[in-house]
Amino acid sequence: MASYRMSATDFLNSGVKVEDYVRALLDHIASRDADVQAWAYLDSQYVLYQARQLDAIPVQQRGPLHGVPVGVKDIFYTKDMPTQHNSPAYKNDAPAVDAALVMLLRSAGALIFGKTTTTEFASVTIGSKTRNPHDLARTPGGSSSGSGAAVGDLQVPVALGTQTIGSIIRPASFNGIFALKPTWGAISREGVKVCSLNFDTMGFFARSVADLELLADAARLVDDEAPPAAFKLVGARFAVCKTHVWPEVGPGTVNALVRGVELLRAAGASVEELDLPAQFASVTDSQQKVFQCDGQVTFLSEYVRAGSKHTLDPILVDFVEKPAGKTHRAHLAALDNLARLRPEMDEIAGRYDAILTPSVVDEAPEGLSSTGSPAFCGMWTALHVPVVNVPGFVGEHGMPIGLSLVAPRYHDRHLLRVSAAVAPVFERGGWKSTL
Amino acid sequence: MASYRMSATDFLNSGVKVEDYVRALLDHIASRDADVQAWAYLDSQYVLYQARQLDAIPVQQRGPLHGVPVGVKDIFYTKDMPTQHNSPAYKNDAPAVDAALVMLLRSAGALIFGKTTTTEFASVTIGSKTRNPHDLARTPGGSSSGSGAAVGDLQVPVALGTQTIGSIIRPASFNGIFALKPTWGAISREGVKVCSLNFDTMGFFARSVADLELLADAARLVDDEAPPAAFKLVGARFAVCKTHVWPEVGPGTVNALVRGVELLRAAGASVEELDLPAQFASVTDSQQKVFQCDGQVTFLSEYVRAGSKHTLDPILVDFVEKPAGKTHRAHLAALDNLARLRPEMDEIAGRYDAILTPSVVDEAPEGLSSTGSPAFCGMWTALHVPVVNVPGFVGEHGMPIGLSLVAPRYHDRHLLRVSAAVAPVFERGGWKSTL
Repeated sequence: MASYRMSATDFLNSGVKVEDYVRALLDHIASRDADVQAWAYLDSQYVLYQARQLDAIPVQQRGPLHGVPVGVKDIFYTKDMPTQHNSPAYKNDAPAVDAALVMLLRSAGALIFGKTTTTEFASVTIGSKTRNPHDLARTPGGSSSGSGAAVGDLQVPVALGTQTIGSIIRPASFNGIFALKPTWGAISREGVKVCSLNFDTMGFFARSVADLELLADAARLVDDEAPPAAFKLVGARFAVCKTHVWPEVGPGTVNALVRGVELLRAAGASVEELDLPAQFASVTDSQQKVFQCDGQVTFLSEYVRAGSKHTLDPILVDFVEKPAGKTHRAHLAALDNLARLRPEMDEIAGRYDAILTPSVVDEAPEGLSSTGSPAFCGMWTALHVPVVNVPGFVGEHGMPIGLSLVAPRYHDRHLLRVSAAVAPVFERGGWKSTL
Repeated sequence: MASYRMSATDFLNSGVKVEDYVRALLDHIASRDADVQAWAYLDSQYVLYQARQLDAIPVQQRGPLHGVPVGVKDIFYTKDMPTQHNSPAYKNDAPAVDAALVMLLRSAGALIFGKTTTTEFASVTIGSKTRNPHDLARTPGGSSSGSGAAVGDLQVPVALGTQTIGSIIRPASFNGIFALKPTWGAISREGVKVCSLNFDTMGFFARSVADLELLADAARLVDDEAPPAAFKLVGARFAVCKTHVWPEVGPGTVNALVRGVELLRAAGASVEELDLPAQFASVTDSQQKVFQCDGQVTFLSEYVRAGSKHTLDPILVDFVEKPAGKTHRAHLAALDNLARLRPEMDEIAGRYDAILTPSVVDEAPEGLSSTGSPAFCGMWTALHVPVVNVPGFVGEHGMPIGLSLVAPRYHDRHLLRVSAAVAPVFERGGWKSTL
């Protein structure tokens, strides 16, 4: 029986027709869209047309993601839908080309369902129209707002996002779902709007680690050593790392981290406190410097084209116009500092099966004007290491809170395998979706 | 009087109507195109239409590049022309969007003239159809083949290229023209096909340093310290660097380098021999490793989409299929090695006004099947430093040979100023275009 509650894995194992599955999703969306507003572009008729085309493919010719509906953040080019970047300058723009990752998923049989909302050019923390499905008065996070909300609200089983600071892991935590921000460079960024070339990373949202693994397969993420078929928590070795950002933490994440450590230990894993060497406290500052200088290059063309500036968010105008303190010397020092720290972090993270660390400051804040603080995410993005958000914990207002698992660069599949073992344990963290 | 021989600077100072200038260029192209074949897309009627539109703009509203015709390598998106990447998979493709650099030039009033040939996805050394205008039996170099040939053949005053190993500097040398490969990241790569994310650099071809400066202005390349208004060679300090690639050098470049040093010294500059520290000998190997691993990610989606592989060059298929020795561990070691060497090179290059070093192994080789060796270019691309090719020298068969000037990262404007002083001196190097 087709149900919008099916995960991608459920659906692939169900024998349900693609058309039946997407009809269930579209019916659910019809009842929820006015509230959640996760979509920048969604054409039900075109979804159904694609579904029928897919159903007509003989079974033996079907791809591994046959019929899996994928929400696509609206900064990825899609050859058959507009790509608008939440920018008035790109209203109804339609480059006739697929981003590399969209091409990979389409080639694997996925159904490109629609385009999910983003903050402007995925580069500001001013919210889009999208609301958190678990509390419509709260932000779904950003910049991958629509992808996080749509997957959290069961409107689509999986979705694509991008993270430059915290744009995948933060909305995943706020919407109570799983997400993978892979190693930087492991997935092609071809056809995705540039925010910060040195940090932008393509990734996935899902409601299970199994679904993340499906997407990782399609993107051909491969570690040097194949991870164990099943990872066991008994005897596993974790570090818990508060990071230099800890002073910004809120009570929800404090409790989540305490509870997460308890649950891992109760499952037979060892968890030791990891104090990073002092030089890692410089990461946030270095990332900000590089981000600012990258932004100046990134938004120059939009700024010049906009002329009167009215089509560009003032924050993006500032990237270009306010070079105060933005010397190349400082930029390069920051860039080179991060490059030096990356192998050091690989070495540290390699001592453990994974590092457990906060995903967010706290549960999703009230209001849609800000997508929340990315403070805890930025460090790992800058260090290029893979991160998985595992949900399970709960904030003071009943909203979901996730924790991040981190591994060395290009240990993405290992990290997913560890996350698959951690996920059922964290389900006892206190949060349960009511959707 | 409009003439196709005018540089961009000449034209801007001439008062000649845009339409008259482009008619002169189109007439010249009509007489040369069957031989040189520099264009992947050129619509004369559309060029003339654009010219008339530009001529109709009131003088006070004109941009700094008003009417300057620009050839655009066919891996840059252009909203009004197809972008075909010399790939059968992109025949007549037309994403309705401008690459960031195209947007900047268009906003400055430039006339986007047409799309110049490239090797497939700018990623192989198998030649395009384009011939060297100075000897039709020889390669114009690549991958920015058409841009180099078109500017060398006076078909257009300036053109855009990209360099991942040697795809700007090599064709500039082979075609006897100037080129700037800027600091990596200084110009947005938005809307340009990815080859190797860690190395791809957008740059310019021209027949004078003054024209390169015009384009650098439009791209808003700015150093931390403004370069001197006029740089004087008397008392200037150069290094001559043969690099670890020197065993590959041919007689033409040996002579060019000797002559270049003589000319600089005769002009009152000091030139000392620079032996790089031993660790710089690892750059070529590190770049190859990163390039191979980046290529595996880059071409995966095209490979998967191609299915039967018939639309993808075998070299690109190999990028994806042959991961022999391509471990992430080796890839990261190479990536981190290059990152460590970049600030070291900045420090070394910063001791001089510029480093003089070969652009190419020798003059353009015979035949169109290979675009020639990029051996001498790759190192500087991997180190992210700016490079200018200055022509002036001559090979055994009368073909042009250029030399490279190199400066620390983000000293692009300084380097152009130095190049402007070096250029008239190198004009005594023995080569003169007969075109």
